[in-house]
Amino acid sequence: MRKTPGLVVQKYGGTSIGSSARVIAVADRIKRSLQTVDRLVVVVSAMGSTTDDLVALAHKVSREPRGREMDLLLASGEQIAVSTLGLALQDRGVPAVSLTAAQCGIRTDGVFNLARIQSIDTRRIQGELDGGRVVIITGFQGITDSHEITTLGRGGSDVTGAAVAAALGAEACDICTDVDGVLSADPRLVPDARRWAEMSYEEAIELASSGAKVLHPRAAEICMSYGVPIHVRSSFTDEAGTWIRAGESIMEQAEVVGVTSDKKVAKVTLLNVADRPGIAAEVFEELADRNISIRLIIQSASSESRARITFILDEEFVDGALEALDRWKAEQLASDVLVDRDVAKISIVGSGLGSTPGLAARMFKALAREGINIDCISSSEMKVACVIASRHLERAVKVVHEEFFKAQPQPVAGVASTGA
Amino acid sequence: MRKTPGLVVQKYGGTSIGSSARVIAVADRIKRSLQTVDRLVVVVSAMGSTTDDLVALAHKVSREPRGREMDLLLASGEQIAVSTLGLALQDRGVPAVSLTAAQCGIRTDGVFNLARIQSIDTRRIQGELDGGRVVIITGFQGITDSHEITTLGRGGSDVTGAAVAAALGAEACDICTDVDGVLSADPRLVPDARRWAEMSYEEAIELASSGAKVLHPRAAEICMSYGVPIHVRSSFTDEAGTWIRAGESIMEQAEVVGVTSDKKVAKVTLLNVADRPGIAAEVFEELADRNISIRLIIQSASSESRARITFILDEEFVDGALEALDRWKAEQLASDVLVDRDVAKISIVGSGLGSTPGLAARMFKALAREGINIDCISSSEMKVACVIASRHLERAVKVVHEEFFKAQPQPVAGVASTGA
Repeated sequence: MRKTPGLVVQKYGGTSIGSSARVIAVADRIKRSLQTVDRLVVVVSAMGSTTDDLVALAHKVSREPRGREMDLLLASGEQIAVSTLGLALQDRGVPAVSLTAAQCGIRTDGVFNLARIQSIDTRRIQGELDGGRVVIITGFQGITDSHEITTLGRGGSDVTGAAVAAALGAEACDICTDVDGVLSADPRLVPDARRWAEMSYEEAIELASSGAKVLHPRAAEICMSYGVPIHVRSSFTDEAGTWIRAGESIMEQAEVVGVTSDKKVAKVTLLNVADRPGIAAEVFEELADRNISIRLIIQSASSESRARITFILDEEFVDGALEALDRWKAEQLASDVLVDRDVAKISIVGSGLGSTPGLAARMFKALAREGINIDCISSSEMKVACVIASRHLERAVKVVHEEFFKAQPQPVAGVASTGA
Repeated sequence: MRKTPGLVVQKYGGTSIGSSARVIAVADRIKRSLQTVDRLVVVVSAMGSTTDDLVALAHKVSREPRGREMDLLLASGEQIAVSTLGLALQDRGVPAVSLTAAQCGIRTDGVFNLARIQSIDTRRIQGELDGGRVVIITGFQGITDSHEITTLGRGGSDVTGAAVAAALGAEACDICTDVDGVLSADPRLVPDARRWAEMSYEEAIELASSGAKVLHPRAAEICMSYGVPIHVRSSFTDEAGTWIRAGESIMEQAEVVGVTSDKKVAKVTLLNVADRPGIAAEVFEELADRNISIRLIIQSASSESRARITFILDEEFVDGALEALDRWKAEQLASDVLVDRDVAKISIVGSGLGSTPGLAARMFKALAREGINIDCISSSEMKVACVIASRHLERAVKVVHEEFFKAQPQPVAGVASTGA
């Protein structure tokens, strides 16, 4: 990938520009950035609660708002954000231009509400940069070949930031957010969670996909593919945060880099699934057709030639899944279908997990000591995930974090000089 | 102009869709319309106070928000409105598609904040209508050849409605609003103001340009040029309102069709204007270059070879005008420039004014009886306008309306059957 020296992409999330005062603060921050950066592209989410407000409005007029019209509605949120930030920058004497996804050629497929970026025509952006302007781009949205406006799903602005950074060959993609960087746990649950100064793309992707809200996993994947370093940092300060980049991560020495959790999940269990080849494929293909993402799949060994399939999915997808499940029962694919909405997921993530024996057991023991029952377990090279009752989640995160981080030295202190 | 039988354009203003409940009511109204109309195009303004809210947001981050970014910001208001109405219609089982001005090819010039529609590429609209869908279009906005989003200025959604109706050869352009039709005065000032069942385009244009808020004068001009009848009616009922169309107007019999008023105006007077040819042209050309619309110009006869020029303009333009005035004083174009922001304008409108002697005098006498001093007067074939002190305005409208309408029969009663 050709790199453009001096070009940085900064992405600001909704809380970073949650009020007119915050928009002004971000404008000032951008102005300061221009002292060290030649060319700046800024990707923004909708301001504060705008997206939630628009969703609430949609639910007031429609029982099931979705599809094309829903995307057109939601996309207005980022349009408000870019133009407001543009006005604030111009008022501060910073030449700036704000562009919608349509205006800067962010092409997506036609999957409304959950579109994927296919290409970015960078000519308009490059032209504006050549003209000496800060270019502000709507995150979260795109346009199809037939001029329909699409949105990329929750956290989609991270994906826009990464894709724009990749397309432009940016030196870095700054993810400016409301925390100081990537932490070892959610600081609202674990106040002494540690910030990492560096980590690998793989660690970031695993953390992000297992519930850490700080970064969308697809954004990390895109930056990994195109070799764009990511800098997750606070939009409230100019301090360095966490650098995510390729190469021997300093974090390889840490066995566990984070404890993540996800409270808004549900568990679906199919009992006595018919034992014929392709059943699992059939089940999950049908869910995929309904655009339902599955977080975990656990299939237990068959007993009496009938298997049990359990899967974990986001709460919001349960109703959609249940529609599919009705057919499975009717066609006797499974004897019964159980749904449990009161479950949560806790995971530990680390590149050392696969090669360090006993880490999973330490997690299980920490939970057991607290009398927290583990419902199911799924593990991979870099992650161990446990499903537990939701009511135990906060306590579980605290004890598991304590188990792995109590005795370790503060990681940031030792490597702070490699940041920024 | 080729007409498309069975095709109607309905325009809904901001108060008509001022809440989610109102959006639902309008969706139901549209559904009822489809029982009598084959093809329906709906043009909407931003919901309720959305535009004002966006303007307030812009003023919080910028001392002088305007230009390209301001239009991008404001345009989001109608995008929210069309998509919300689209969701409501779809939820009621009415096939509908909502389009931005960019998506339905409403081309304007590049004058941000005050653009003019140049052409409408109706292919997308026609295609959607052919597919049996109600087409919902963002009012108030357009797109330039270089894909910049523009807005048309206050009341611009009426202009969009008229232009779309003209481009499609619609049978009628319904202006659905918060009053029952075109009235003889503002009902908030004159509770017994009368509704007309019919009037000519010319009468509507004069009424609209002299302060009646019910319809944008450019919308009436466009419909007149293309022979599209306008139906101004309430969006809260299905009752007929006021038909505006060509031909011998039933209103020709009425000497005065309306008393209009405009409180938000200011008066600028140039004293001892240099008496050389082209001075007036110079003054008003400069104001036009600044996109400042002038409502009235009164030039009194020269005394001692120096003239006095007075003009009335909207309050919002005063600051812009004063910038120009400074130069005039500096270059001794005028000895002094007086600005009075405490003035208001009251007008009587009617096609009979030019041919019926004494109507203007009756207006002046009515004002005099109340001790209301007339500051200046401007009259044309169809209108007499008086500038008075703002504090007298409400009383002035009442007494002038009483003068012309006290003894006349209720016009609507006699012709109601010709409506709808």
